[in-house]
Amino acid sequence: MSSLTISIDCADVALENAKVSILDHGFLFGDSVYEVVRTWKGKLLFAEEHLARLNNSAAGIGLPLPYSNVEFRAEMERMHKRSKNPESYVRVIVTRGEGEIDLSTASCKRQTTIVITKPLTVWSDALYKEGGKLHTASVQRNSPRATNPAFKTGNYLNNVMAIDEAKKVGATEALMLSASGHLTECTTSNVFFVKGGVVFTPELAVGILSGVTRAKVVQVCKELGQKVKEGLYPPADILGADEAFITSTTRDVMPITRIDDHAIGNGCPGPVTQKLIGAYRALCEKAIAHG
Amino acid sequence: MSSLTISIDCADVALENAKVSILDHGFLFGDSVYEVVRTWKGKLLFAEEHLARLNNSAAGIGLPLPYSNVEFRAEMERMHKRSKNPESYVRVIVTRGEGEIDLSTASCKRQTTIVITKPLTVWSDALYKEGGKLHTASVQRNSPRATNPAFKTGNYLNNVMAIDEAKKVGATEALMLSASGHLTECTTSNVFFVKGGVVFTPELAVGILSGVTRAKVVQVCKELGQKVKEGLYPPADILGADEAFITSTTRDVMPITRIDDHAIGNGCPGPVTQKLIGAYRALCEKAIAHG
Repeated sequence: MSSLTISIDCADVALENAKVSILDHGFLFGDSVYEVVRTWKGKLLFAEEHLARLNNSAAGIGLPLPYSNVEFRAEMERMHKRSKNPESYVRVIVTRGEGEIDLSTASCKRQTTIVITKPLTVWSDALYKEGGKLHTASVQRNSPRATNPAFKTGNYLNNVMAIDEAKKVGATEALMLSASGHLTECTTSNVFFVKGGVVFTPELAVGILSGVTRAKVVQVCKELGQKVKEGLYPPADILGADEAFITSTTRDVMPITRIDDHAIGNGCPGPVTQKLIGAYRALCEKAIAHG
Repeated sequence: MSSLTISIDCADVALENAKVSILDHGFLFGDSVYEVVRTWKGKLLFAEEHLARLNNSAAGIGLPLPYSNVEFRAEMERMHKRSKNPESYVRVIVTRGEGEIDLSTASCKRQTTIVITKPLTVWSDALYKEGGKLHTASVQRNSPRATNPAFKTGNYLNNVMAIDEAKKVGATEALMLSASGHLTECTTSNVFFVKGGVVFTPELAVGILSGVTRAKVVQVCKELGQKVKEGLYPPADILGADEAFITSTTRDVMPITRIDDHAIGNGCPGPVTQKLIGAYRALCEKAIAHG
């Protein structure tokens, strides 16, 4: 953890001083929002999309953001440069700020903004060559009518419980279901499957984060003339699929070849997944070249 | 906030130094558990019950507690004495501790324990004489199969959203419903109603915190020969009730005389509520005298 570069309210701080008050509602109640942006060839990838989502999460929990998107972007860029990482993982957290020890947000007068940069997460080559394994979590995904998964907040215990279940059985990620038993998403990634040449992914209304990579992969499919559908799907659909993959900012498109005790398709990353890995990377290259 | 007395890992700290690392999973993900105990005549009230629930919450999220109940209790007592408060609100928080910026708990090697003491919350006399008002929240209570409300954790955004709705319309508390539309609980209290001489309260299985005061009030009812039932109830049941009240550690038994635009009963605290206010206080006196 020595390779972290940190700022609090845009002021640089050393790791040993990177602390928040115990009265910060981000600490007391998980009352905060965040985003993770990665760099690609040293530039922030899809920063506008991530900042749009940060604004959406903040609006969703009634948290006014203390900076404009231009200011957030400038601070993330400054932090990446200061870090000297070839490629960075950049996490932006905005909390409700310090207040009374009371659930109400009324006493919180000034938000706390934290930007953390670390070397970009590297996933093993084996995961892309052989594919990862999902574990179907026993804990259900939060309902969009309760703690809405569309908002990326400091309330992540639901996902912590699920990933710990997955790690115990040696899985890469946990697949979470809704109360109605439909596929939703994984703990830090969205899920897709391919059946009969069509790409399927759970619709936003089931209660998931609107993944930036998810949206780009759907866009890539459309550009390639690859049929893609969003809807409500039971777990049987992915277990009986020809291919499966997950998407996230740090993972891009990662093949999934096992779910619990089932092999997906022939147990190897399939041709549609491989096509999308390449096409998504090409899209990123293009976005950076034109950014 | 100058009247706070704070310890971190049982070491006294001044408010300006009462901070946690931004790498503490309690801050990053709300990965923590807590309890609030009050003193009564200077002694911790129902400390064993609160510590049993702290252990239950910790077990529920797979968090090993760093201290025994005897040690927690000694630290809470020490903090109350140090505070010199006539009566204290004592909050104990145990977080997963510092770790990698990753949902998994595997990198967290040492929990963080924080004890905060402040003068006991005083609710206005008017609330007891005239009764408080509830607002039925539009946000649903978390499902017990997702982020289980039985565990008192650092994931409290669900309740933050609800209380902010209530405060906007001038209500004392927010009444939360389950996905199935049943009464659950309020944001920091349990709810009861009285109809035809019977006391009703939502059953634990609907997805609520097992309130310490809630259990004591049920016990008091049984001791008084007052009929009490726990079950699944629609909002219409409380709206059509003769009396209603809420219970919590700092509120004891607090009458509720309005819910949204409806008066409950004749709009005044009723006789069963008043009987239980007295009987609960007598139980506390007895518990402290024999403790």
